Amino acid sequence: MQEHHVVVIGGGFAGLQLVNGLKGAPVRITLIDRRNHHLFQPLLYQVATTLLSTSEIAWPIRSLYRDRPEVTTLLAEVTGIDRQAKTVLLKGGESIGYDTLVLATGATHAYFGHDEWEPVAPGLKTLEDATTIRRRVLLAFEQAEMETDPAVREALLTFVIVGAGPTGVELAGIISELARVTLPPEFRHIDTRTTKVILVEAGPRVLSSFAEDLSAYAQKTLEKLGVEVRLGHAVTACTAEGVTMGDTFVPCRTIVWAAGVQASPAATWLGAPADRAGRVVVDPALRAPGEEDIFVAGDTAMVIWESGKPVPGIAPAAKQQGAYVAKVIRARLAGRPAPAPFRYRHQGSLATIGKSAAIIDFGWLKLRGWLAWWIWGIAHIYFLIGTRSRLAVALSWVWIYMSRQHSARLITQKETMREE
Amino acid sequence: MQEHHVVVIGGGFAGLQLVNGLKGAPVRITLIDRRNHHLFQPLLYQVATTLLSTSEIAWPIRSLYRDRPEVTTLLAEVTGIDRQAKTVLLKGGESIGYDTLVLATGATHAYFGHDEWEPVAPGLKTLEDATTIRRRVLLAFEQAEMETDPAVREALLTFVIVGAGPTGVELAGIISELARVTLPPEFRHIDTRTTKVILVEAGPRVLSSFAEDLSAYAQKTLEKLGVEVRLGHAVTACTAEGVTMGDTFVPCRTIVWAAGVQASPAATWLGAPADRAGRVVVDPALRAPGEEDIFVAGDTAMVIWESGKPVPGIAPAAKQQGAYVAKVIRARLAGRPAPAPFRYRHQGSLATIGKSAAIIDFGWLKLRGWLAWWIWGIAHIYFLIGTRSRLAVALSWVWIYMSRQHSARLITQKETMREE
Repeated sequence: MQEHHVVVIGGGFAGLQLVNGLKGAPVRITLIDRRNHHLFQPLLYQVATTLLSTSEIAWPIRSLYRDRPEVTTLLAEVTGIDRQAKTVLLKGGESIGYDTLVLATGATHAYFGHDEWEPVAPGLKTLEDATTIRRRVLLAFEQAEMETDPAVREALLTFVIVGAGPTGVELAGIISELARVTLPPEFRHIDTRTTKVILVEAGPRVLSSFAEDLSAYAQKTLEKLGVEVRLGHAVTACTAEGVTMGDTFVPCRTIVWAAGVQASPAATWLGAPADRAGRVVVDPALRAPGEEDIFVAGDTAMVIWESGKPVPGIAPAAKQQGAYVAKVIRARLAGRPAPAPFRYRHQGSLATIGKSAAIIDFGWLKLRGWLAWWIWGIAHIYFLIGTRSRLAVALSWVWIYMSRQHSARLITQKETMREE
Repeated sequence: MQEHHVVVIGGGFAGLQLVNGLKGAPVRITLIDRRNHHLFQPLLYQVATTLLSTSEIAWPIRSLYRDRPEVTTLLAEVTGIDRQAKTVLLKGGESIGYDTLVLATGATHAYFGHDEWEPVAPGLKTLEDATTIRRRVLLAFEQAEMETDPAVREALLTFVIVGAGPTGVELAGIISELARVTLPPEFRHIDTRTTKVILVEAGPRVLSSFAEDLSAYAQKTLEKLGVEVRLGHAVTACTAEGVTMGDTFVPCRTIVWAAGVQASPAATWLGAPADRAGRVVVDPALRAPGEEDIFVAGDTAMVIWESGKPVPGIAPAAKQQGAYVAKVIRARLAGRPAPAPFRYRHQGSLATIGKSAAIIDFGWLKLRGWLAWWIWGIAHIYFLIGTRSRLAVALSWVWIYMSRQHSARLITQKETMREE
């Protein structure tokens, strides 16, 4: 008899944890991703801001399973699912049959119906997004150095970050430090310390998932770093000339979008009910509604937490879901009763603000300042994959900490000089 | 009185050595490059073959001169030179006046009148070239894993490298090792050990700038690594389907061009006499012919060595020329007599073949094997810029050496799935 075939779409945190959890189970596994690498998204903002280089936070997926011959990795793009035939359809016309299917396809940024903003206000989800943002930030300083018109120069030295969640806060803090600490001795015609970094947030405070006093501390720290925080401002237009928030127009040439998230099209493939963010509303065993053999995990699943709120779109939540689905599959194959419904355990929230401050909210313990920053750094190095990446990231951080020099300040790819 | 203004075009080995050599001289310097980074080209093939990542061998030029306020760095593209007005013309219409001009604009790959081959047979001169080659090599294996037609699969697993100079030899050796050592445990449908790596050379031997016995050793070592060496074969066509050499057509999907070099358009800007490779034929003080104030250094200069041969296009030669021009400029400004004509000192030739063999030809000493490889490695780490890069590259190499795992195997940028 053929072995039970588990097809996993998506090599993010949920997908990998699922494959890890199926080690030794009587299955063969096909892991499909349209990228060849797993990406450690929690540190992606550090690539965008020249602190880390791309290869420090990404690993070829197939290299992770070299010792598991039952795992086949495919670089391919999924175009749909045929539930009747139990097959996954791939771009190019191929299809792959499954016994059990797990959708862990993640999320992308969302522009709330304004997709036309994307070219001028890129989000941060992929390595290419990160190198695009890095290129634009670095080119803005380069062009300002050449520019003679003071108004254009000021627009070039204005950076607007939309959305004050962890990514927005992290980006704003580091860009401001780059302009105020690293770059000043390197330019002759401009004073990069005059750079404006504006963090715009529609809500009433930064980092709204944290306790209020930690939000307040984060805002104060950002302001000390030179970031202008504008709360209660919804962005109404983004163009190549600048950002409009209500009645105010801010001329700027670099916008980064850190505001909204939209699930990948898994719900559409299934024809399943989705929430406003496009996430599949799953049952308590993380199955797609009415499906015995299709599970959904990670950012593309809508799961309600005990507090009544949805489980947050963070790496630990995705990992827990991946591990849970592996347990369910194992139980089914062994003929054991199904495990108890999925229950999310929130281990805490972490965010950094610039190079030596962070906040941690464990619920039972709240921390801020340099100790929080050290815990944050050690935790992130621990969660990287493999000794080599840990050494490389640790080396980069220690170096930056001591020298104040960012090592990954390369402008690459075609858009070498931005045509505007 | 205004200080003497030296304008340097090109932040490669010659340009940087010149700026370094003018430290403390009574000049202000403007260093123009169309890239924001200096690139350590001798290790570029290691980025193309997944051994190193981009930021390990490139540094933002302006960061190198943060402590020299008289040096202004500009990211700009030069479009021409007005010798009457003594100005450099930039894309966008700006112009920059000079008292002394140094052209150190380097070289690019040449297709001997077949520029139409470039899209299918990229050369290796920039970071983008390296990531393009890396992407194509990795995607070829990925597509072969999905492919069911055996002929197409074989073409996908055939890599042709044109030109058996140091770059061609280094690329062929590492791609073959990647296929034979690193990748086999990671694929389920293909045996990557069946990969064909073909090194084509029009001349009678590989590494023709080395002594004959070292060439023979290099060829034997390549063949042991599984590389097929085809000498005396001129390539007559490159297409998306394969390579033609005389009567033979080899179906292959990945071609790398390591055959010809063409100087940048400096000679055209000057209207100066050039050799066949486009290099400016300079006078013994490295000045453009008939020009008092324009020097040419590095790969874009044609300088005759004492042997009657042109000075080779390698990093040490470019550095010596940059340093020499700095001496000439210093002497002129101090009213001292001009230094003796430029004399190239050949320090030796080095090349690696795969992961633990190299050849070294110092003239008085010839070495091959692992000792040569260690000397090669230590020399290259020594010549990198800055402690941080040295640590990072050393870490990468030690890691690869011990684990046989390549760390920089990322497929990035738009061409994610090659459309053919």
